[in-house]
Amino acid sequence: MKFADMNWMQIEAYLADDDRLMLVIGATEQHAYLSVLTDVLIPEALAAAASEQTGVLVGPPLPFGSSPYFLAYPGTISLRMGTLLAVLEDMLHSAFRQGFRKFLVLNGHGGNRGAKAVLDELANQFPEMQSYWYDWWVSPVVGEIAARHDLTPSHANWLEAFPFTRVTDLPEGEKSLPDRIPSGEASLVRQHFGDGSFGGHYQAPDEVMDEIFSACFQEVVDLLEKLGA
Amino acid sequence: MKFADMNWMQIEAYLADDDRLMLVIGATEQHAYLSVLTDVLIPEALAAAASEQTGVLVGPPLPFGSSPYFLAYPGTISLRMGTLLAVLEDMLHSAFRQGFRKFLVLNGHGGNRGAKAVLDELANQFPEMQSYWYDWWVSPVVGEIAARHDLTPSHANWLEAFPFTRVTDLPEGEKSLPDRIPSGEASLVRQHFGDGSFGGHYQAPDEVMDEIFSACFQEVVDLLEKLGA
Amino acid sequence: MKFADMNWMQIEAYLADDDRLMLVIGATEQHAYLSVLTDVLIPEALAAAASEQTGVLVGPPLPFGSSPYFLAYPGTISLRMGTLLAVLEDMLHSAFRQGFRKFLVLNGHGGNRGAKAVLDELANQFPEMQSYWYDWWVSPVVGEIAARHDLTPSHANWLEAFPFTRVTDLPEGEKSLPDRIPSGEASLVRQHFGDGSFGGHYQAPDEVMDEIFSACFQEVVDLLEKLGA
Amino acid sequence: MKFADMNWMQIEAYLADDDRLMLVIGATEQHAYLSVLTDVLIPEALAAAASEQTGVLVGPPLPFGSSPYFLAYPGTISLRMGTLLAVLEDMLHSAFRQGFRKFLVLNGHGGNRGAKAVLDELANQFPEMQSYWYDWWVSPVVGEIAARHDLTPSHANWLEAFPFTRVTDLPEGEKSLPDRIPSGEASLVRQHFGDGSFGGHYQAPDEVMDEIFSACFQEVVDLLEKLGA
Amino acid sequence: MKFADMNWMQIEAYLADDDRLMLVIGATEQHAYLSVLTDVLIPEALAAAASEQTGVLVGPPLPFGSSPYFLAYPGTISLRMGTLLAVLEDMLHSAFRQGFRKFLVLNGHGGNRGAKAVLDELANQFPEMQSYWYDWWVSPVVGEIAARHDLTPSHANWLEAFPFTRVTDLPEGEKSLPDRIPSGEASLVRQHFGDGSFGGHYQAPDEVMDEIFSACFQEVVDLLEKLGA
Amino acid sequence: MKFADMNWMQIEAYLADDDRLMLVIGATEQHAYLSVLTDVLIPEALAAAASEQTGVLVGPPLPFGSSPYFLAYPGTISLRMGTLLAVLEDMLHSAFRQGFRKFLVLNGHGGNRGAKAVLDELANQFPEMQSYWYDWWVSPVVGEIAARHDLTPSHANWLEAFPFTRVTDLPEGEKSLPDRIPSGEASLVRQHFGDGSFGGHYQAPDEVMDEIFSACFQEVVDLLEKLGA
Repeated sequence: MKFADMNWMQIEAYLADDDRLMLVIGATEQHAYLSVLTDVLIPEALAAAASEQTGVLVGPPLPFGSSPYFLAYPGTISLRMGTLLAVLEDMLHSAFRQGFRKFLVLNGHGGNRGAKAVLDELANQFPEMQSYWYDWWVSPVVGEIAARHDLTPSHANWLEAFPFTRVTDLPEGEKSLPDRIPSGEASLVRQHFGDGSFGGHYQAPDEVMDEIFSACFQEVVDLLEKLGA
Repeated sequence: MKFADMNWMQIEAYLADDDRLMLVIGATEQHAYLSVLTDVLIPEALAAAASEQTGVLVGPPLPFGSSPYFLAYPGTISLRMGTLLAVLEDMLHSAFRQGFRKFLVLNGHGGNRGAKAVLDELANQFPEMQSYWYDWWVSPVVGEIAARHDLTPSHANWLEAFPFTRVTDLPEGEKSLPDRIPSGEASLVRQHFGDGSFGGHYQAPDEVMDEIFSACFQEVVDLLEKLGA
Repeated sequence: MKFADMNWMQIEAYLADDDRLMLVIGATEQHAYLSVLTDVLIPEALAAAASEQTGVLVGPPLPFGSSPYFLAYPGTISLRMGTLLAVLEDMLHSAFRQGFRKFLVLNGHGGNRGAKAVLDELANQFPEMQSYWYDWWVSPVVGEIAARHDLTPSHANWLEAFPFTRVTDLPEGEKSLPDRIPSGEASLVRQHFGDGSFGGHYQAPDEVMDEIFSACFQEVVDLLEKLGA
Repeated sequence: MKFADMNWMQIEAYLADDDRLMLVIGATEQHAYLSVLTDVLIPEALAAAASEQTGVLVGPPLPFGSSPYFLAYPGTISLRMGTLLAVLEDMLHSAFRQGFRKFLVLNGHGGNRGAKAVLDELANQFPEMQSYWYDWWVSPVVGEIAARHDLTPSHANWLEAFPFTRVTDLPEGEKSLPDRIPSGEASLVRQHFGDGSFGGHYQAPDEVMDEIFSACFQEVVDLLEKLGA
Repeated sequence: MKFADMNWMQIEAYLADDDRLMLVIGATEQHAYLSVLTDVLIPEALAAAASEQTGVLVGPPLPFGSSPYFLAYPGTISLRMGTLLAVLEDMLHSAFRQGFRKFLVLNGHGGNRGAKAVLDELANQFPEMQSYWYDWWVSPVVGEIAARHDLTPSHANWLEAFPFTRVTDLPEGEKSLPDRIPSGEASLVRQHFGDGSFGGHYQAPDEVMDEIFSACFQEVVDLLEKLGA
Repeated sequence: MKFADMNWMQIEAYLADDDRLMLVIGATEQHAYLSVLTDVLIPEALAAAASEQTGVLVGPPLPFGSSPYFLAYPGTISLRMGTLLAVLEDMLHSAFRQGFRKFLVLNGHGGNRGAKAVLDELANQFPEMQSYWYDWWVSPVVGEIAARHDLTPSHANWLEAFPFTRVTDLPEGEKSLPDRIPSGEASLVRQHFGDGSFGGHYQAPDEVMDEIFSACFQEVVDLLEKLGA
């Protein structure tokens, strides 16, 4: 169940039995040919699947993250890192006020990882709060699946090309992997990355995508179980 | 069109012709028997309808607002007002960086109105930025329609009971209008408002709801036209 | 009594009997032909009168508010909304530390209304804190008096032209009501509003002004009584 | 002239000839037997006198400063230092927007001196901005006058006992000078300082007070001249 | 050369030829048997060696980072993530003001990586600014060396036991690798990790440590060359 | 002992007996011919000497302070005052979490003195916290020694020319004392102060420097004793 489909009485009823909550955070940023909401859509899909299986609630996804380097690409809406910290703090603090105690933050965007500090800072204020932060794409199982299929996982390539993140047809071929460049003004970043993919194949067969989704889904379910123990 | 269905190239193509953007902000807070996302769902629906008619893009809705007084009701996730100001500033600043110049902020929640200051503060930094802030429920046309049907518009009563905000059956009757109480700890607020409605009828006939939606839709379209002129 | 005429021992003596405090906030901003301090002078006058009648103390008025849209008019000193929130929070927190528990915020300026969120946010931290926020000019009684005299109340017109806010002679006639314009750079605002009045009559007969002052004064006294009950 | 007695047109007329502005900041805090507004009243009086002589405008005084150590004394309203910095920044920034370029900050409170950093930080953003910060009580001339009369200047003793800061009769005698204590919770500070004076004579003859006022007044006038050169 | 050994004239002379600067950031936090400054000492040593070879200047190291999870271990001094962002922003902004344009941030602490966002945010303000962020311990070469010697690199184990980070004798044996635990109050973290090492061998032979240092040193030199090109 | 030479177990052992901590804060800014770290090196040397005598621990020095006025001199790295407040707050808060209760802040830089407010603000939150702030150069004993030797103490002149702050030869003569100038853009400041010294002799005989160091050292020891009583 997700918040949008519930009223407060239903959420109160849930809290009588369970104090876990999934929070989805992502980004609105260029993903080459994929939806600019890709980094929200993937963790949201994982959360929905895990909620169906476990009954754990999903809060409203935060669609914005820290993406200053992509601001020259239209459709990128970036929060300053300090703003992101404040939002996540307020989300956790509010839910804690009502009895939620165990949180699983499902993050879809690499640039957000610095916000994990909020989980530790808040736990020092509220010792009953416990939480996991989950970045699906850096999970070892994802690396193994990719390696087994001879695919390099990277930003906006096949790795994120799920059926639900595609908004147009995708190129057939493969893009060479760009060099690392220094942090610089967003226009330099765009100039360097062109269509926005960080290289490699643009798509992978459906079976590969399913395999990845299933593996990550299982990890989410496992983390929820650990929190519920 | 909304961001979720587009990639950056499509948004860039849009910007070649148009520099308007609709931004939806709302709240995740108790709405009595209605969805806790009610304050997002209504402006989102207005934005979707207006986008279909005018072609103006809709950014990803911010689902959180300032609702400190409702924090004793489960499912209320409130940003400190200072956080909300920062988020709105970052949203506008990011989009401005890419060529958006005219913004229509569709707000669904009374507690957010202080954030309108951001529109003026940013315009002083970026003189090409212009924007309207639209609070559908305080529009005179809504008041007229309500008066014509002998209905009192208020928080979480019939006024917000659209088909798409209902998550359960609604009570049939009418709730007496509670007194004004001082600002106080959220538990006092909950004690005072009980189920969370601010009183009046819980539902209105579909025709009334359609009339209100149509009137507000028309106002949104009109504001978009003014921005485009 | 107001703080300026008291030392701390006298304030301590007051606190032995009463825990109410009036706080005045306003703005320093263009008010057409009227004093740039108009938005402070009016609530300050109401507070002084109510203090005389009830004995409730009045803290030092904060003369600055959020007026970014008027910054092209000389004499406008505007706080960022985030600054205003911080100041109000510190004012309430300080007084609470010493035993004040019930606050009446007398606000003179529309742009400040977003700061009301502070009252609710602080009450969640300090459950003994209770407060009312009073905007004299949007009170229904003011609307009724204006309607009875066929006058349209608006910024810097007759509505605010009390003897103690006048610093020069006022125009005799009436100004046509300007259209609504989008939020934009302050120079556009000045260009649109010219002398700064939002239209209507520049002055009203003394009896009207007295009637309004008396009605608002009575509301202030009533709110103080509610807080003291 | 002070802002309260002017409308924006009059301030604009002033700016045609002069770009100087006096800003008064002080504190609302215990001053033993003297008004809790003492630290505002003194620089305000100096500003009024200097304005009369030079014609330089005086902005609305900020009545609050940084006084965390006195919060156990009723009537002390203290801003966090970070809030004070923000307010002063906004005051200067606003006035600069309208053409003021040279500022004299007349400060009445020792705890505020850290806010002087704002003058330098803003000047780096706005190279045309220049300003002096004036703390009347640490001026060498004040020290000389005090020494000549065998008086020790200190917080809330004779030094600040001007006719316009007195709200009750003052003790006749002399208080022994308390030891320095570490920074600690405000209750410890109150326990240590008792009535709040930092020791020495409670009053001085009128001639001494006049001498001090005149000397400081002259310094203010001199600084205004330097700014106007 | 490092700042401590130079005056401003010498730094100005350097800037005539070179606009690169190394900035060292680290942490003051428990490192089991090693110095609580370990995360500063290692990047500082790398910077000193690279400076000797290349002549690129090294700014004063920031000894504090984001370590909220270790606050139950004495000697841990942690900045809130928001504070760390502000400090890094001020460091870069200040140096940029004087002509430094290319920065290499040598970071010694995993908890700081979220601050990398500052590099991108500032570059959008100052397009001439370019920078690399270097985390020595996650470099692939370090992983390869560790793997070749059958060692698991982790917090406060052999990986960080350089001669210059040792302050006492180290245990001989090996610690089993603790499980992953949720983010929680710092006392839980201490309870879980005991002596503070994250497991594995406490020490490695000098040749291994030299090999790692040399490999990282070479990477630092390479990044400086890229910035200088 | 200083933190860099200790691990957390040693610091825990210290806390079993003592709850005092010395914190050194300074600046990285132009000091004419002296090291740009002068304001750190002096309090650090005092702390080291006092630690040797008393056994009280010294935390890692913060090398940055508030120096906006010197930003036109290469090698000046300045924190905004608001940033400095946050860092000092985090330093004290962290150490307090682990049992430190009495703090001696050894400050080397005049521009930092506004940060003393943090000591009082935090003590109101944590009533067991007590602290002294020590500015060695404004101590009366320093004034007396200077006067006895006919020397004027000032920024970057002989007063700060200790053997350990010298990085080059110093000029022999004397510089005339520059006038006071208004706060203004940093380039104006540099233009006014030239080599950066505020005038007077560039050096003093070793005996004078020793006398000053000994006198300040004694004051530090005395303050530590007061905190330990």
